[in-house]
Amino acid sequence: MGAPPGYRPSAWVHLLHQLPRADFQLRPVPSGFAPQEREYQQALLLVVALAGLGLGLSLILIAAYLIRVCCCQPPGPPSAKSPPPGGGCVTWSCIAALLIGCAGIGIGFYGNSETSDGVSQLSSALLHANHTLSAIDHLVLETVERLGEAVRTELTTLEEVLTQRTELVAATRGARRQAEAVTQQLQGLAFWQGVPLSPLQVAEDVSFVEEYRWLAYVLLLLLQLLVCLFTLLGLAKQSKWLVIMMTVMSLVVLVLSWGSLGLEAATAVGLSDFCSSPDTYVLNLTQEETGLGSDILNYYFLCNQAVSNPFQQRLTLSQRALANIHSQLQGLEREAVPQFPSAQKPLLSLEETLNVTEGNFHQLVALLHCRGLHKDYGAALRGLCEDVLEGLLFLLLFSLLSAGALATALCSLPRAWALFPPRSGGERAGSWGEDGGGSTLKGLVCGGRILMDPCIAPQ
Amino acid sequence: MGAPPGYRPSAWVHLLHQLPRADFQLRPVPSGFAPQEREYQQALLLVVALAGLGLGLSLILIAAYLIRVCCCQPPGPPSAKSPPPGGGCVTWSCIAALLIGCAGIGIGFYGNSETSDGVSQLSSALLHANHTLSAIDHLVLETVERLGEAVRTELTTLEEVLTQRTELVAATRGARRQAEAVTQQLQGLAFWQGVPLSPLQVAEDVSFVEEYRWLAYVLLLLLQLLVCLFTLLGLAKQSKWLVIMMTVMSLVVLVLSWGSLGLEAATAVGLSDFCSSPDTYVLNLTQEETGLGSDILNYYFLCNQAVSNPFQQRLTLSQRALANIHSQLQGLEREAVPQFPSAQKPLLSLEETLNVTEGNFHQLVALLHCRGLHKDYGAALRGLCEDVLEGLLFLLLFSLLSAGALATALCSLPRAWALFPPRSGGERAGSWGEDGGGSTLKGLVCGGRILMDPCIAPQ
Repeated sequence: MGAPPGYRPSAWVHLLHQLPRADFQLRPVPSGFAPQEREYQQALLLVVALAGLGLGLSLILIAAYLIRVCCCQPPGPPSAKSPPPGGGCVTWSCIAALLIGCAGIGIGFYGNSETSDGVSQLSSALLHANHTLSAIDHLVLETVERLGEAVRTELTTLEEVLTQRTELVAATRGARRQAEAVTQQLQGLAFWQGVPLSPLQVAEDVSFVEEYRWLAYVLLLLLQLLVCLFTLLGLAKQSKWLVIMMTVMSLVVLVLSWGSLGLEAATAVGLSDFCSSPDTYVLNLTQEETGLGSDILNYYFLCNQAVSNPFQQRLTLSQRALANIHSQLQGLEREAVPQFPSAQKPLLSLEETLNVTEGNFHQLVALLHCRGLHKDYGAALRGLCEDVLEGLLFLLLFSLLSAGALATALCSLPRAWALFPPRSGGERAGSWGEDGGGSTLKGLVCGGRILMDPCIAPQ
Repeated sequence: MGAPPGYRPSAWVHLLHQLPRADFQLRPVPSGFAPQEREYQQALLLVVALAGLGLGLSLILIAAYLIRVCCCQPPGPPSAKSPPPGGGCVTWSCIAALLIGCAGIGIGFYGNSETSDGVSQLSSALLHANHTLSAIDHLVLETVERLGEAVRTELTTLEEVLTQRTELVAATRGARRQAEAVTQQLQGLAFWQGVPLSPLQVAEDVSFVEEYRWLAYVLLLLLQLLVCLFTLLGLAKQSKWLVIMMTVMSLVVLVLSWGSLGLEAATAVGLSDFCSSPDTYVLNLTQEETGLGSDILNYYFLCNQAVSNPFQQRLTLSQRALANIHSQLQGLEREAVPQFPSAQKPLLSLEETLNVTEGNFHQLVALLHCRGLHKDYGAALRGLCEDVLEGLLFLLLFSLLSAGALATALCSLPRAWALFPPRSGGERAGSWGEDGGGSTLKGLVCGGRILMDPCIAPQ
């Protein structure tokens, strides 16, 4: 009857968690999440380095391909009857690559918004936890103040009124002792008071970082979209300088794509390690940061039958003391009021205070129960380990598609511009974009007709 | 110090809620959510009818356009030197329309997944609420049984042991009375027992409907994607029968798009009315369905300072009775055990039971507090009024784009196939799809070259 079933690691977490990890000396590293350990850091850096290796390899392959094409088959004018081998499909492969890149951009936008959703779920769970914790502190403070005020004023008045009958004064003193006991017990319940860790601060930090991450990705995605569209435009208008500029931009975006791929892969691997068994790590980290006892943290982070409520005894003692105050006040009302009518006012006021205190006490019991805070913890984990991880995997797919598409485009673009008919170089360069879209398609079609001579030849 | 700020209507809700509504006689209808009222139903049906009107209008416009084109400018062979006015841009506008349709499909997939997310948030909130409600019932049942067992066995044994000393027997009887009072108070707390409404059932029903809605949209989106791709293929291969078939399919999808647009618009309008002030409607509906008192429902649905806990008195009485049992047991232990050592065993067992009952009582206080259930209510509202509404608006945008794109395509396609060179009719019809993708593009390019003769003419 504890919390309902909460976070469970997904299949992706298991899959990524089972991938082998190695440090810089290629010795295997255990896949438990330990970001403070040197070997684990090296394992994550190695994932980033793999992306760097991929970038290097693809650059070498592109260079080798282009050198081979340049040196072995110097491009002649395409009007020669024998078509350059493969030359007919240069523009085709370039366009296909750019379209795949555009599909990748769609996937990237989806992944970016999914990641953003996950982070906002995480920070809203942190804000909710912060609200609960500060509500506990506030409620304890308020109740303690109210009880203290009642002890100072009403109980003192009552003692003065009843001063002639010692047994009634003794009962009043008993109520005072019980009230002080309740105050003391309640003060021990404000467990988050003075703790240096603020979930609000963490949520703000997370949102701040996420804002910039989101913006950076949107800019990268827009940059790649622009490169794709302007490259298509350049091919359509056969504008040599636009295609050359876009080739250079493609190179820049290729480097950025591999870079983001490395970061995403390392983050996804680290996140999968964290998400496969988050409780231990979060427990230890929170204990270090807050200095709270492990019984309290275990209660909130695990929240199952096996862990007993660490506030149980304080709550029970407060409850008994409150019940005792009530029966003492009732006794006083029965005994004292007929003889001392002036005792009625402070007694009624005390009963009112007692009722409010009991209401606050029930609210406090509800707030202190692990259910609420554990639900926030589960929501934060689901945001991080389901939505954020899923978003990262989509971004990874985007980076992969974009790296592949850009590498293909980089192989084809120089060949495509080399195949542009010489006259179009100077003549058309200045005129692109001055006429409507119809002529763009016309150019694409006309350019295609020339570049794909072998296609049209059999007609 | 109640629940943290929960659901707030979004800007979209306000915007849609402010749109004027009218019934079939075009009299204005107030925009409060009242699905059981005839006029409100008519207002929603009118929104669907508007989409039907849109479909009719677009069909008439398409037919008029095609008749005008057919009758006024009978398509001659495109080889004539004077190009048919506008004929050069037929394929262009067709391709642009299909590409816009494809972008719409992407938006539709996003909207569909967003709606699905919202519904799953709604049903998970319902499941969570169901868990809380059944946990309350279960906990009350368990505690009452445990207390009843203690009264039947340990307290009876104790009375038998202490039968020689009447004042101790009286104290035991006092404890028995208090235990019975606790049992009675606790039984009143299981407020959901015997209520005919099960959130679990509602969640299952919602998930069931959502599953089919999701599937239907995915099928519609895939159908539209296939129509777009095959139309492009047909244009590229100049395959007359494929283009004719796709024109018919486009007509079918156009009707489906307008139909889905009407349903989405009506749902969005109804949802915005519901979401602008959901509390009253949900309160009344739940009261009708469950027959629970309005104090209980107000407490859980509003959960603010102004509404007091309807279980406060029962909880306070139970708490006092438990404290009294405790003090009576302590008194018995002090007085009876030195004289009757055999009383120790039942007394210890009773104290154990009392401790467990106090733990259960604190858990019950936490479960009964409005915080948890109100948070589920807020999550359900956010799922329905934020995610589902946002998803519906994206689906609306998809339907609009798709209706526009298909209408343009339907205007252009018959003109495009009329412009296909006659020889390609029979010759190519059987051969599409038998050669690779390269020839598709080739066809698109070659077809484009012919269809866009005016573009190439100035060369």
